[in-house]
Amino acid sequence: MGIADEVLEANRRYAESFAKGDLSPAPARRFAIVTCMDARLDPMKVAGLEDGDAHVIRNAGAIVTDDVLRSLVVSHMLLGTQEALVIGHTGCGLEGVTDEQLRQRLAAAAGVDASNVTFHAFPRVRDRVRESVQRIRESPLLPASFGASGFVYDVRSGRLEPVA
Amino acid sequence: MGIADEVLEANRRYAESFAKGDLSPAPARRFAIVTCMDARLDPMKVAGLEDGDAHVIRNAGAIVTDDVLRSLVVSHMLLGTQEALVIGHTGCGLEGVTDEQLRQRLAAAAGVDASNVTFHAFPRVRDRVRESVQRIRESPLLPASFGASGFVYDVRSGRLEPVA
Repeated sequence: MGIADEVLEANRRYAESFAKGDLSPAPARRFAIVTCMDARLDPMKVAGLEDGDAHVIRNAGAIVTDDVLRSLVVSHMLLGTQEALVIGHTGCGLEGVTDEQLRQRLAAAAGVDASNVTFHAFPRVRDRVRESVQRIRESPLLPASFGASGFVYDVRSGRLEPVA
Repeated sequence: MGIADEVLEANRRYAESFAKGDLSPAPARRFAIVTCMDARLDPMKVAGLEDGDAHVIRNAGAIVTDDVLRSLVVSHMLLGTQEALVIGHTGCGLEGVTDEQLRQRLAAAAGVDASNVTFHAFPRVRDRVRESVQRIRESPLLPASFGASGFVYDVRSGRLEPVA
């Protein structure tokens, strides 16, 4: 059985006892989380969220890219969120490498030309989270009242540390 | 107590019984999910995932943007995933509107100039998921062997429907 079939089978079991069909699309706790795609980090559990509480935006590195700002504008403007929590994590694959190293690796391993790709690799996760928080605070697409704070999640201990 | 403090308090309880500090950064089931930030959709539960199983990438609309392709390249190249499941959903705030309407709304409500923002609004979620799957299949940054399939999640019933 392939992954898609496994997921559909698991979903059948989930849907059998599904009882949250009347949740509002607007997040009940009026905030958004921006975090990494990392498989070890489940933002619902890490941050104590219930279904319907918050928007969750995730990409490689928890980077506040243009696409994340797009998502936050939709989150705020259409669905009423008032702040964002940026959560980076220890042991991220984008920490301690450079974009140029990643491009060389892609070329060597797969013959792929990634010269046009900005990978957003970074030296230190704390600093990167602070930069991301700053980018939200300074965005002209969000009001000055929209809050932003930053955290680093330790994948070894399960703990969040505030950093911005 | 503000949101950040509430999240830190919930995290303290989570970390007290945390027992997954030795998970590998490489997803155990070697796939990635691309889905929407929607607060009603918990991909871990919807798709039956355990901690460590899969990468989870999320933005407004489950759109395969350049930033999502960047994340998928990192997911595949650095951490060994072999396929992506794109999961759109019913009742998405980006369905049935146009980017121009969103720009006008932002200007009228908040005086914000979003003329440079592509919101990726779409007429029908099924078609949008199919386009996103196609974009993964055609990306020169991922090998032809990298799989992609598409689903629509029904927020009323909890069910996933395969669409691509």
